[in-house]
Amino acid sequence: MVYVSRVAHFNAAHKLVNPAWDAQKNQEVFGKCANENWHGHNYELHVTVKGEPHPDTGFVFNAKTLAELIEKLIEEPVDHKNLNIDVPWMQGQFTTAEQFAIGIWNQLEPAVHAAGAQLHCVKLYETPRIYVEYFG
Amino acid sequence: MVYVSRVAHFNAAHKLVNPAWDAQKNQEVFGKCANENWHGHNYELHVTVKGEPHPDTGFVFNAKTLAELIEKLIEEPVDHKNLNIDVPWMQGQFTTAEQFAIGIWNQLEPAVHAAGAQLHCVKLYETPRIYVEYFG
Amino acid sequence: MVYVSRVAHFNAAHKLVNPAWDAQKNQEVFGKCANENWHGHNYELHVTVKGEPHPDTGFVFNAKTLAELIEKLIEEPVDHKNLNIDVPWMQGQFTTAEQFAIGIWNQLEPAVHAAGAQLHCVKLYETPRIYVEYFG
Amino acid sequence: MVYVSRVAHFNAAHKLVNPAWDAQKNQEVFGKCANENWHGHNYELHVTVKGEPHPDTGFVFNAKTLAELIEKLIEEPVDHKNLNIDVPWMQGQFTTAEQFAIGIWNQLEPAVHAAGAQLHCVKLYETPRIYVEYFG
Amino acid sequence: MVYVSRVAHFNAAHKLVNPAWDAQKNQEVFGKCANENWHGHNYELHVTVKGEPHPDTGFVFNAKTLAELIEKLIEEPVDHKNLNIDVPWMQGQFTTAEQFAIGIWNQLEPAVHAAGAQLHCVKLYETPRIYVEYFG
Amino acid sequence: MVYVSRVAHFNAAHKLVNPAWDAQKNQEVFGKCANENWHGHNYELHVTVKGEPHPDTGFVFNAKTLAELIEKLIEEPVDHKNLNIDVPWMQGQFTTAEQFAIGIWNQLEPAVHAAGAQLHCVKLYETPRIYVEYFG
Repeated sequence: MVYVSRVAHFNAAHKLVNPAWDAQKNQEVFGKCANENWHGHNYELHVTVKGEPHPDTGFVFNAKTLAELIEKLIEEPVDHKNLNIDVPWMQGQFTTAEQFAIGIWNQLEPAVHAAGAQLHCVKLYETPRIYVEYFG
Repeated sequence: MVYVSRVAHFNAAHKLVNPAWDAQKNQEVFGKCANENWHGHNYELHVTVKGEPHPDTGFVFNAKTLAELIEKLIEEPVDHKNLNIDVPWMQGQFTTAEQFAIGIWNQLEPAVHAAGAQLHCVKLYETPRIYVEYFG
Repeated sequence: MVYVSRVAHFNAAHKLVNPAWDAQKNQEVFGKCANENWHGHNYELHVTVKGEPHPDTGFVFNAKTLAELIEKLIEEPVDHKNLNIDVPWMQGQFTTAEQFAIGIWNQLEPAVHAAGAQLHCVKLYETPRIYVEYFG
Repeated sequence: MVYVSRVAHFNAAHKLVNPAWDAQKNQEVFGKCANENWHGHNYELHVTVKGEPHPDTGFVFNAKTLAELIEKLIEEPVDHKNLNIDVPWMQGQFTTAEQFAIGIWNQLEPAVHAAGAQLHCVKLYETPRIYVEYFG
Repeated sequence: MVYVSRVAHFNAAHKLVNPAWDAQKNQEVFGKCANENWHGHNYELHVTVKGEPHPDTGFVFNAKTLAELIEKLIEEPVDHKNLNIDVPWMQGQFTTAEQFAIGIWNQLEPAVHAAGAQLHCVKLYETPRIYVEYFG
Repeated sequence: MVYVSRVAHFNAAHKLVNPAWDAQKNQEVFGKCANENWHGHNYELHVTVKGEPHPDTGFVFNAKTLAELIEKLIEEPVDHKNLNIDVPWMQGQFTTAEQFAIGIWNQLEPAVHAAGAQLHCVKLYETPRIYVEYFG
């Protein structure tokens, strides 16, 4: 079993807010992340698939194919967008790094599976100092 | 003459739009950066001052003092904010990396001067692949 | 289960020496790391906690809280210090990256647990080319 | 159990081609990686061993010893070489990152074992955006 | 005057050899870089243009336009190629980082000029530890 | 004129203290950097030389020669050492990044000159967030 990872970059605006709470409570819990007029990040995404190298290619999964899936399913709907407003599959959810990584997994997993491989991990850097990992 | 640089990080939302143009023209010129609902970045800021090491300290400029100036004058008004809406000294300006770097210079220069040093350069990374430098 | 990591930086002096050995033997085993008058590093620490996103926040663990725990329990006693002399919980131990990571785990684990989360991993870079990981 | 990793760098030329296929099929599958006159990479290699810190040293494995094994067994035969032509243990294999990581594991594992430790992982960056991991 | 830089990545094979010298002399001067069967690098290219922000856009030079020029004039002819064999504008020249940076400048300068800006610097990383800068 | 830079790494212990001041004054000015029992850093050094590519090699300066000069003149006396105690050419000076960069320049400049090139810049990172540049 070999694990193959592809790194992608995109940027987006978001804010963290629980609509059931008032502004003061949101500020207490989410701090500056609750600021009303949005903030944003350069996200760095690592997508890892696993499998055995194919005898005809030596590839577990063609990195070009993986890059194309990430571009179509994640970068196109997300890059230079507002995660709270513009991304259909994040509607009704917190746009924390945790929930966003789960959302990305849910978008990628069926496509990676259909392409004959196994998705292993979605790793998402929100900043160079905060990142999350989700393994399904 | 020795040049001393201090690196800071913050993140913010913005969009690029010329209010004299219609949406189509803005999209043509600014591309995804004109998306209506904002996007954002993790900015990385390098502030460089120059001078001769002081005989009592060996410092051109105390890096802790420099960090405090950057925190008070740049990070506090800008971090987790919307550059187009929330930052008084960017009002009426494009929030391109170019204009933002000039804005940062204008905030820092008098304070660095008052502290007895010379501001040399403001270098601003908008993404890991796009950065600007301004020397006053 | 989602894994959330926070990165912190600090620097410290240390040396590697087995007090039961003479200088020559220490030099043979530890090389330049045994130099008498200390050397030092900019350490980079990644602390990973795991759990399920909370339904009220979308957070596994508030990254701000995690940063505060790391600052209080690790950065304050360790930053700009001598690991062999100044850090109570490293007394009587080798200050190798391995032992230091275990020491960091032992400081953080009860506090992370008390805050309602699970510590998963302490990853410590001694230099950009040498790092260790400890999972308890 | 503590995991200790050492990072090494080298560069090499290679190309990806299945000799059973014609040029067009190779181009279709491998894209630019099949270009006839070779291309190359700055590889970054992370070698991870695991074990318990030794009571006499606090080391799981002396990082200097690990660096010497990597230099002798991997860097010397591979650095500034052509993976398809010059490296005996890659003959008859695809020089994909996947197969190359397996080849590196096979070179290192007996030597790490003989030195009294356990090889845990070979992680190989082909570019800053594509990397593979192999755990034996 | 503001300086705007765009970073690009590509990889290529090359070797360093003076055809007027025998193999021994080439080995003496160029070391492993003279190895017969090529080696290669992941190059990182920083292209810097300078000018004043345009009053209609706040841009010195549209970074998207700059990226397109770099892609067409540098990445397409160079990426996944052999610098000594495949790149017309490097024929008859050493493929040192120095000469390659001059070659890149000569390709980009007329196009940047035609687009109404001034090329300021070509910075080229051959490895993370060796880079060159050329200012025309 | 082309500028060629070589990056090196080493680590060392130091502290910042003015012997003419008492402990309180040192603490006020130098903060944690004055802690009595030393602290340390992983320094990153960039050495830049300038000149024209030689017609026989395409090199401004052989990067291998530059690496050897840096190793002999800087890394050997400094790596894993105490800057205040062990380095002859830092005696009687503050070990600030500023003074250390000047010291490094003074060691390298005659040797680079003797080797037929011009030293242009010494750039020294004390941490990833603080660096200095000295041009002689």
